[in-house]
Amino acid sequence: MGRVTARRRVQHVTAADTVARPDTLVVEEPLEVRVNGRPITVTMRTPGSDIELAQGFLLTEGVIGRREDVLTVRYCKGTTTDESGVVANTYNVLDVTLAAGVAMPDVDVTRNFYTTSSCGVCGKASLEAVRLSSRHCPGDDPSTVAAKTLTRLPALLRDAQKVFASTGGLHGAALFDTTGAPLAVREDIGRHNAVDKVIGWALEHDRIPLGGTVLLVSGRASFELTQKAVMAGVPVLAAVSAPSSLAVDLASQSGLTLVAFLRGDSMNVYTRPDRVVR
Amino acid sequence: MGRVTARRRVQHVTAADTVARPDTLVVEEPLEVRVNGRPITVTMRTPGSDIELAQGFLLTEGVIGRREDVLTVRYCKGTTTDESGVVANTYNVLDVTLAAGVAMPDVDVTRNFYTTSSCGVCGKASLEAVRLSSRHCPGDDPSTVAAKTLTRLPALLRDAQKVFASTGGLHGAALFDTTGAPLAVREDIGRHNAVDKVIGWALEHDRIPLGGTVLLVSGRASFELTQKAVMAGVPVLAAVSAPSSLAVDLASQSGLTLVAFLRGDSMNVYTRPDRVVR
Repeated sequence: MGRVTARRRVQHVTAADTVARPDTLVVEEPLEVRVNGRPITVTMRTPGSDIELAQGFLLTEGVIGRREDVLTVRYCKGTTTDESGVVANTYNVLDVTLAAGVAMPDVDVTRNFYTTSSCGVCGKASLEAVRLSSRHCPGDDPSTVAAKTLTRLPALLRDAQKVFASTGGLHGAALFDTTGAPLAVREDIGRHNAVDKVIGWALEHDRIPLGGTVLLVSGRASFELTQKAVMAGVPVLAAVSAPSSLAVDLASQSGLTLVAFLRGDSMNVYTRPDRVVR
Repeated sequence: MGRVTARRRVQHVTAADTVARPDTLVVEEPLEVRVNGRPITVTMRTPGSDIELAQGFLLTEGVIGRREDVLTVRYCKGTTTDESGVVANTYNVLDVTLAAGVAMPDVDVTRNFYTTSSCGVCGKASLEAVRLSSRHCPGDDPSTVAAKTLTRLPALLRDAQKVFASTGGLHGAALFDTTGAPLAVREDIGRHNAVDKVIGWALEHDRIPLGGTVLLVSGRASFELTQKAVMAGVPVLAAVSAPSSLAVDLASQSGLTLVAFLRGDSMNVYTRPDRVVR
């Protein structure tokens, strides 16, 4: 794409002196996703794997369930004129056309993806208020993964994260099979986008539900990322950093194995520890 | 509040053995914000400073501009019943009543806070497509801050982040004056929420626009966080980690000083370096 990193001039200030030098930054741009012509969301993302991102997002929000639910995904023809007068497609709007019979997202859903009913979260327990209903049940997945396989995964993700090395600015998500073989690795300035890209990859490869896989994220395990794993049918979610209370509660109710603080040769297994074997 | 951390049982797995033990997690719960009775957004947040969070959010989205724009903020009376049959207020919904004459947010704004017009981002340059118009102009702020003052700030933020120390799960945001004296420090599982809480504190203390201050964030400088700084009239935004391309572009257009990679005795100054003095 040539749009993943950008150069900017910077003043590098130390105790000794100030030096002007170029710096490589990660690119952040808006991506608007439209469904059947209607704008659904704008996400701030790092360009690249946009079609995976849009489809992974629609899957993890419950709009689509499989590859056949999407008829076409196309960049909008809108163009902009840059400083030198060159007219170019912005590549910042994707039009998704759903297959016949696939329902458009509810208006309330498009306004806020966490609001599952018009009465809002008032009077509901937290998890009930924000939980989406999943087509898949990670709880039924009989997969197991060796603890020593899990401890190898963060290094594999870091090695694959090429842009992070140059900019320090990207979150990573990676999908592995239970032997630790990598299936897909994606980066993005947004943690949720990196996960949506990986899940969009799986959708395009007809791998939904993602039975027999481990989803690794480079940061923390929030409720949102845990919900995305559940919606895609992933049985094991592993995070390098801490989980939140609601992530653990959702994993517990969904039968997802949630591993966090996966560092060095140790980890914490919060739910369904039977899937992590010696 | 007693709701900032929660205990969960965990299996701690190392190469040597597996030990069951309790673990302290950061709490994540949904907060629905209503304006004049209408749901505007649901954010996943760490309970605490909710009224600051709601007001900071409304300020940085351009809905309100000063303390007098808000008449009342109250928790909704909705209740839930916990496992032991105890009925309790969820404290997860805030009703904000605007003062007479303050316009309700546009429906398009409530659907997506980045979409500034109904035609979406198609055909617009990235920054133009997502930028909110600010009531304040950081560019006019004559403040300066010493480089050696800036290098002291990350340690001050870490010292103040008490929950992070126990859970490893929280982002921090802190507001300092230009001598490095802390004004407000807030934590949240969401980086944007920590910043909204700090800015909500400033609104409640009639400190908007935030001239003569430095806003420090514990992570990266995204477009979204940079926009929040601009909307509150902060002249200097400092981040411990990397900035994004769009954050630098917005800072440049707004006259905001953007400092990133603030670590040890060094930093990168991306825009308006005249405010950082030796």
